[in-house]
Amino acid sequence: MAGNTIGTLFRVTTFGESHGKALGAVVDGCPPGLTLDEAYIQEELDKRRPGKAKGETPRKEQDRVEILSGVFEGVTTGTPIALIIYNQDAQSSAYEHLRDVFRPGHADFTYYMKYGIRDHRGGGRASGRETVARVAGGAVAKRILEEYGIEVHAYTVNLGGIVAKERNLSFVYQNRLFCPDPSAYEAMEAKIEETLKEGDTLGGVVEIIATNVPIGLGEPVFDKLSADLAKAICSVGAVKGFEIGAGFSVSQLKGSENNDPISPFGFLKNDAGGMLGGISSGQDIVIRVAIKPIPSHRKPQKTVNLHKEPIEIQVGGRHDISAIPRIVPVLSAMTRIVLADHLLRQLAILAFRKRLAFPNFFHPDR
Amino acid sequence: MAGNTIGTLFRVTTFGESHGKALGAVVDGCPPGLTLDEAYIQEELDKRRPGKAKGETPRKEQDRVEILSGVFEGVTTGTPIALIIYNQDAQSSAYEHLRDVFRPGHADFTYYMKYGIRDHRGGGRASGRETVARVAGGAVAKRILEEYGIEVHAYTVNLGGIVAKERNLSFVYQNRLFCPDPSAYEAMEAKIEETLKEGDTLGGVVEIIATNVPIGLGEPVFDKLSADLAKAICSVGAVKGFEIGAGFSVSQLKGSENNDPISPFGFLKNDAGGMLGGISSGQDIVIRVAIKPIPSHRKPQKTVNLHKEPIEIQVGGRHDISAIPRIVPVLSAMTRIVLADHLLRQLAILAFRKRLAFPNFFHPDR
Amino acid sequence: MAGNTIGTLFRVTTFGESHGKALGAVVDGCPPGLTLDEAYIQEELDKRRPGKAKGETPRKEQDRVEILSGVFEGVTTGTPIALIIYNQDAQSSAYEHLRDVFRPGHADFTYYMKYGIRDHRGGGRASGRETVARVAGGAVAKRILEEYGIEVHAYTVNLGGIVAKERNLSFVYQNRLFCPDPSAYEAMEAKIEETLKEGDTLGGVVEIIATNVPIGLGEPVFDKLSADLAKAICSVGAVKGFEIGAGFSVSQLKGSENNDPISPFGFLKNDAGGMLGGISSGQDIVIRVAIKPIPSHRKPQKTVNLHKEPIEIQVGGRHDISAIPRIVPVLSAMTRIVLADHLLRQLAILAFRKRLAFPNFFHPDR
Amino acid sequence: MAGNTIGTLFRVTTFGESHGKALGAVVDGCPPGLTLDEAYIQEELDKRRPGKAKGETPRKEQDRVEILSGVFEGVTTGTPIALIIYNQDAQSSAYEHLRDVFRPGHADFTYYMKYGIRDHRGGGRASGRETVARVAGGAVAKRILEEYGIEVHAYTVNLGGIVAKERNLSFVYQNRLFCPDPSAYEAMEAKIEETLKEGDTLGGVVEIIATNVPIGLGEPVFDKLSADLAKAICSVGAVKGFEIGAGFSVSQLKGSENNDPISPFGFLKNDAGGMLGGISSGQDIVIRVAIKPIPSHRKPQKTVNLHKEPIEIQVGGRHDISAIPRIVPVLSAMTRIVLADHLLRQLAILAFRKRLAFPNFFHPDR
Repeated sequence: MAGNTIGTLFRVTTFGESHGKALGAVVDGCPPGLTLDEAYIQEELDKRRPGKAKGETPRKEQDRVEILSGVFEGVTTGTPIALIIYNQDAQSSAYEHLRDVFRPGHADFTYYMKYGIRDHRGGGRASGRETVARVAGGAVAKRILEEYGIEVHAYTVNLGGIVAKERNLSFVYQNRLFCPDPSAYEAMEAKIEETLKEGDTLGGVVEIIATNVPIGLGEPVFDKLSADLAKAICSVGAVKGFEIGAGFSVSQLKGSENNDPISPFGFLKNDAGGMLGGISSGQDIVIRVAIKPIPSHRKPQKTVNLHKEPIEIQVGGRHDISAIPRIVPVLSAMTRIVLADHLLRQLAILAFRKRLAFPNFFHPDR
Repeated sequence: MAGNTIGTLFRVTTFGESHGKALGAVVDGCPPGLTLDEAYIQEELDKRRPGKAKGETPRKEQDRVEILSGVFEGVTTGTPIALIIYNQDAQSSAYEHLRDVFRPGHADFTYYMKYGIRDHRGGGRASGRETVARVAGGAVAKRILEEYGIEVHAYTVNLGGIVAKERNLSFVYQNRLFCPDPSAYEAMEAKIEETLKEGDTLGGVVEIIATNVPIGLGEPVFDKLSADLAKAICSVGAVKGFEIGAGFSVSQLKGSENNDPISPFGFLKNDAGGMLGGISSGQDIVIRVAIKPIPSHRKPQKTVNLHKEPIEIQVGGRHDISAIPRIVPVLSAMTRIVLADHLLRQLAILAFRKRLAFPNFFHPDR
Repeated sequence: MAGNTIGTLFRVTTFGESHGKALGAVVDGCPPGLTLDEAYIQEELDKRRPGKAKGETPRKEQDRVEILSGVFEGVTTGTPIALIIYNQDAQSSAYEHLRDVFRPGHADFTYYMKYGIRDHRGGGRASGRETVARVAGGAVAKRILEEYGIEVHAYTVNLGGIVAKERNLSFVYQNRLFCPDPSAYEAMEAKIEETLKEGDTLGGVVEIIATNVPIGLGEPVFDKLSADLAKAICSVGAVKGFEIGAGFSVSQLKGSENNDPISPFGFLKNDAGGMLGGISSGQDIVIRVAIKPIPSHRKPQKTVNLHKEPIEIQVGGRHDISAIPRIVPVLSAMTRIVLADHLLRQLAILAFRKRLAFPNFFHPDR
Repeated sequence: MAGNTIGTLFRVTTFGESHGKALGAVVDGCPPGLTLDEAYIQEELDKRRPGKAKGETPRKEQDRVEILSGVFEGVTTGTPIALIIYNQDAQSSAYEHLRDVFRPGHADFTYYMKYGIRDHRGGGRASGRETVARVAGGAVAKRILEEYGIEVHAYTVNLGGIVAKERNLSFVYQNRLFCPDPSAYEAMEAKIEETLKEGDTLGGVVEIIATNVPIGLGEPVFDKLSADLAKAICSVGAVKGFEIGAGFSVSQLKGSENNDPISPFGFLKNDAGGMLGGISSGQDIVIRVAIKPIPSHRKPQKTVNLHKEPIEIQVGGRHDISAIPRIVPVLSAMTRIVLADHLLRQLAILAFRKRLAFPNFFHPDR
């Protein structure tokens, strides 16, 4: 019960189903005094919005965000910021034939067993569409991080086995796959075209970097920055793996290879991925995330229905061929939400360490 | 601040430093009526305790656990169970020369920067020794899970690049490396011997399976079982990666390959790793965890001290050659803590769905 | 930061300002399978809505609630239920002259000092209007409690010093002041009329009873039912006191008088107010709440503005003469939110104590 | 389940039963760099310790606190501070005859019904002895508040109906009842003597003030300072009422009387009790707490046993005649725990508002 809130000082609560009336987020703990408007948040949502490119769902979601509270005359007030995105193009009837069916690779079975009921329309709350609220919440986190110059970038480093070698961040925002490598991008597009013809879907790997992260974020031993990032990232549907810095390759490394030596001018490399003991070290945070292929493909699949009868289905609907690229801004958003929360948590420690004075209206000198 | 508690209904709070007086855990939310004694918990601690085998620290920790509260006449009462392990063999002076030094790959630098102070003795709270309290807490979780027949096993599937092919669970508990593959075990021991001579250390991969997990554990969208497992596992020092089921290999898979078909008798395979939509499906939960090589090796390393002066160090101390095998029972413990918490959370839903009656002392018929 | 969520398993997060676009609540942790519609929630909101009676604000709030998520085909699904109430009749300009002024008895000063900014329109988030979201959330809690036959009633036992002697629950819902005593009601109305002429406002005391509460709700030592009720009730603006059972009169009682003797048929009296050791005893829960007079009255008041200049103000606006009766359904709502949360928490314990079985789809016999 | 932790940034978890091995607290979130030793904490515990005066239990508790972690070379490190107090003088056999009996006014019945088991020895976790851990945790909070000059004082303003008129804070610490009024003190002692002869017990009222509290503590709308204080205070056994400032007397006040006017030099009175909108205003925080008479008195009482058989008991044991004075330092402790938590929470906001810089080891100029 009650698992739709994340964060300690900066907290995001989301709601909404794929084919319900609306999706949204309540962002609690945004500091006061920040300029914020709908256009700013919309920009992030637009990155997640499906276009008309090959392999993407033709569903036309406008995904217009509205700010309902917490912003007064264009500035945050410190009170909860409610963000709402009304669903507009939800063709629920298209899902009627799936009412009693458990689609393989989907959460249909587990939701039904957990709750004894499920909203079968488009996956209900288990739909990828749920992530629109995360992106909205993440946009507020982005606004907070900006004040400290912290940036988060996410990009596709593997799609269907095509691996990006280069890390050209400016190219990332020039192609619809958020790919940092122009030649890999071409190959990825070809792979998509080919898979589209097969009626199948693709997985991949997204890399996230956070730059200019201050030293000291993360609260050992359980709320380490690494642990909270793992939770936030792995809470996104379709994520099957999470690694930091050298990640799974550490199994092949010796200690003398893996350790990052330190010089008077900084660390000499970054296999640690920006965290030591779960606390940010001031280096770039580097994370990689495994994304499974979308389970809705056009090939016939064996499954059962509510009555345990074997059936064969072909999932039509309006689906993407991969969670990538739409998941990319979602992963940025989750990373930002965690960083904003830990930024504020560490600011409490720093402020106390400095005995930061409280304003005293009547006796400003004290 | 305040990051040393994990869980919602079943909550573990830990404390203690490597060379402080004691380490311990307060386990809050253990259901009443369970038999529990120190021997039961000790058995788990003993799995984590260093032996005299090659590559393990010669430090003689008795690690005797004491139950201070929450158990009355051998049975849990529902009140917090405090578990304490006094430190006995702590040679702090051995660390004196490291007082002002940041050891590469360690949390020395980040703790110092975060808090402005650190207990340099043996890594303080960032020491692997901290995990003794997790294992103690995890033993209580194990006791809970037993009542539902849920088992958790963890074993070494990669040490220094030597990969276990077989999954012989009974062999796991017959070798000190918790390796499930007899021939890989031999190779791993050889690898350890060789690395010991080099004065270096090794990383690896641990696999965890949880069997007989009921359907329905996990609370979308943020407290998914997968997400809470990711956090719990990644909160363990030395963990650099986490994957579920097919994990990072999903980037190579098509949707038609990755989906697990369903028959009237169950799922036909388990690439999902036991969770769909972040909720347990009744299949085995399968997780793999990347463990970095221990940063304390005997080779010279470049670093700086508090005064930003470059220095070269050789870390002596009494250290293991790998976090494996000692981390293996720690990973089981963290998995159990999460499962126990989510078991209780889902029981609340099920109990309500069944309108489970409350006992009424004075009017038992109502 | 982040203080707008309450509850553990059943969690309510609210948002919204008096003169913002909308107010609302996200209710997370509502069990699945309950019928719920807007009319049901609206009924609770209507109890809080100002009428045209003497002493009440003439502001015409329709307060129409909309369910945005979490309910599918009229039944809760276990996912978050978002409830929204759009503001319609917000005359912000009426507050323009108060932009720089700290109204005595209001939160103007503290919000400004805390956040460095405030939404001055109608008190912003500190407005009594904020409670509309609590009542919406409380209606979902009511729906849960109904399944266990738990009822919560709140009523006015003191208004401006006029004390209700009788406890006629059926009369409570027949008069606009929720007064349980017909003759006290008449006197209260007269007191209102008189105070209205003076341009002043009134405080009072509201009593809350919860009947049919199962034995065993409340989690010692900090999350006692009594403690969580105290928090929930005291989080409502205007509340200045909270007492349980005999309350402050215990200072005059001997132990032999205050203890409630127990017979084989139940407790022989209820000075404890339905809780022992912070856990519900099966007796009625009885709470009394002190409500301060509304600080906005028509008499001249001395205060200062942002520039610390002394000024005299007369607060016009459209205000009630007392937080009573509008606060009465709010107090019921908060009580229900706490009871629903603790009902679910105790169900987890009971379910475990009974080893409640999980449904097993493929092997129903196991 | 899991209700033994309080706080968000500054968190206290307690454990222990009256006649178990030990009681203790884990204090998580204490800022680093504070001097702290056992003597400092002991001083607070000694205030709570029973003396040999009339009406106090003859049980000789040494209540020696030991710091197990989180303090290094006399200074806090930012890691959890575990505090332990071993039980020494626990005569469990004295309680054997109460094993199956529900003592009126005690938590025996509710613990038994909630958990299906209870530690009957001295009330187990429901004993007043549990509060020793709160006082230990509160001592750490005291150390934090000292750095900001915040002081908390609690004192007895009513014992058995004898009311203290004067508020002589220096006298408070010169008499064993923490009474602020010399003449009331004499009358209270006489009342105790008389009640002791009767074999009965007394209730009372404790007042708490917190001085020099900065403006801005408290997080609306649920985590208001007032709400969190209410919870913390009402979580203490024996507390039956809580009021702030004018408290229950507000029911008799008009708005024009109750509002505190503001001048350029500050508030002109303090009926609000130091909080407006649940946020500290910079005035003294003033709280009053109703304490019920101790239920263990020597007169015969009617009750039942586990088998629902009616019995008459006389509770012997070694008991105080009133929770006062021992509860007084407990109430201070709880108040301090809440203030420390909210101090840190508001520091996060202030630090962000000032864009407090993070230390940068390698590039201190940036």
